Amino acid sequence: MTTLWLVGIGTGNPDHVTGAAIRALNAADLILIPRKGEARSDLADLRRQILAQVLTAPVQVAEYDVPPRADQDDYLGAVNDWHDAIAQAWSGTIGAHRPDAANVALMVWGDPSLYDSTLRIATRLPGLTVRVIPGITSLQALTAAHAIPLNTLATPVTITTGRQLRDHGWPEGATTVAVMLDKGGAFTAIEPIDTHIWWGAYVGMPEETLLHGPLSDVAGEILATRSRLRAAHGWIMDIYLLRRGDDV
Amino acid sequence: MTTLWLVGIGTGNPDHVTGAAIRALNAADLILIPRKGEARSDLADLRRQILAQVLTAPVQVAEYDVPPRADQDDYLGAVNDWHDAIAQAWSGTIGAHRPDAANVALMVWGDPSLYDSTLRIATRLPGLTVRVIPGITSLQALTAAHAIPLNTLATPVTITTGRQLRDHGWPEGATTVAVMLDKGGAFTAIEPIDTHIWWGAYVGMPEETLLHGPLSDVAGEILATRSRLRAAHGWIMDIYLLRRGDDV
Repeated sequence: MTTLWLVGIGTGNPDHVTGAAIRALNAADLILIPRKGEARSDLADLRRQILAQVLTAPVQVAEYDVPPRADQDDYLGAVNDWHDAIAQAWSGTIGAHRPDAANVALMVWGDPSLYDSTLRIATRLPGLTVRVIPGITSLQALTAAHAIPLNTLATPVTITTGRQLRDHGWPEGATTVAVMLDKGGAFTAIEPIDTHIWWGAYVGMPEETLLHGPLSDVAGEILATRSRLRAAHGWIMDIYLLRRGDDV
Repeated sequence: MTTLWLVGIGTGNPDHVTGAAIRALNAADLILIPRKGEARSDLADLRRQILAQVLTAPVQVAEYDVPPRADQDDYLGAVNDWHDAIAQAWSGTIGAHRPDAANVALMVWGDPSLYDSTLRIATRLPGLTVRVIPGITSLQALTAAHAIPLNTLATPVTITTGRQLRDHGWPEGATTVAVMLDKGGAFTAIEPIDTHIWWGAYVGMPEETLLHGPLSDVAGEILATRSRLRAAHGWIMDIYLLRRGDDV
């Protein structure tokens, strides 16, 4: 019986790793690391850097190639097929390296609960018992870096994606909207009046870059900064919080 | 110049504390601990237990009495007055114990960004520089314990309070609703059809208790369990996730 540990490791700041994550990684018989190609190889390197810092004794590590995602019109269908292929890559890699492993660990950026597919992929392998170690999300790294609360006093918060914001606009009745997985500038699709933005790229990492202000004032600067950083690093991960009303 | 460090410490599991939190607590000249009266003294004790585990050298600790909150009809007004009084208690305690402190730390349950007033109180003390260390929230401890994702694939999530759910019902258009700060059973105010609940009390602590199922099947069991646990411990903190639709 194999237990698959989905270990949240935060957003790249090794200081955000929890004791529980360190314990789970050290207790693993095998740690799986995705190989995604050159553009984001610094992310794979970050996983190895974190391991170098937290492992107190050697643990076997196996890389697997992340299958490509089909670029088809049916978004959900393409994602489902992709998740099937990743599940096969995991079980193939475990079988090739440690078929007898009692504990296999996967290091998950942020927290495995939030806009991450690892849990959904794991359900495709019914022979495994899944355990989750929470980690600091990019949303928490963003609010911490700006020293702002996520919610205003006693009000709800909507967490959504760039695609949702672009397609459906400002969520009905919302005061605060956190936007993740934006391919770039979904905030330009909403009416900026009376809206404040707190934006961050590479939050929690040495390259962390922050901007904030009234959306109508800073939207252009954020778009320009995002393009510049993406060109410089070859990739970008950013996130932002939008708030409407007086209580910014 | 004093820096006030708001240090997220998770929900009571010392293993959820991050390296950044441990570093900030060890670097403090003074750590403030709230004294709230007997009913929740085990929470104050938990702060001391965490300090005992993470401090590598003695750090001065000062307790302050949390002022009582006025029980007035004007909820927001009462909360604002209360926050003013807490800010005064902090500055009075710092002044009495370490007026020269460069670094003062406050240990915040969960993460300082999420339904916590510490950041809002800190803005009342403009002489202080505020820095935030993110921590694992009860919401993350809940989803990790149930090994479920917060969101379904590519859909938004609403985080709200028991009061909001009771007063305003199911948020317009929501698939997933996370409910915090519920004084008890706000989920009975919504239509349970086609709704799944994942509930947890004392998440992350040794007393952690979990229940889940279709809301119409388990609502009664959750209410009964909550009453029993509250009577046994003298206090309760619980949280739950509600999801509507097929993708549970």
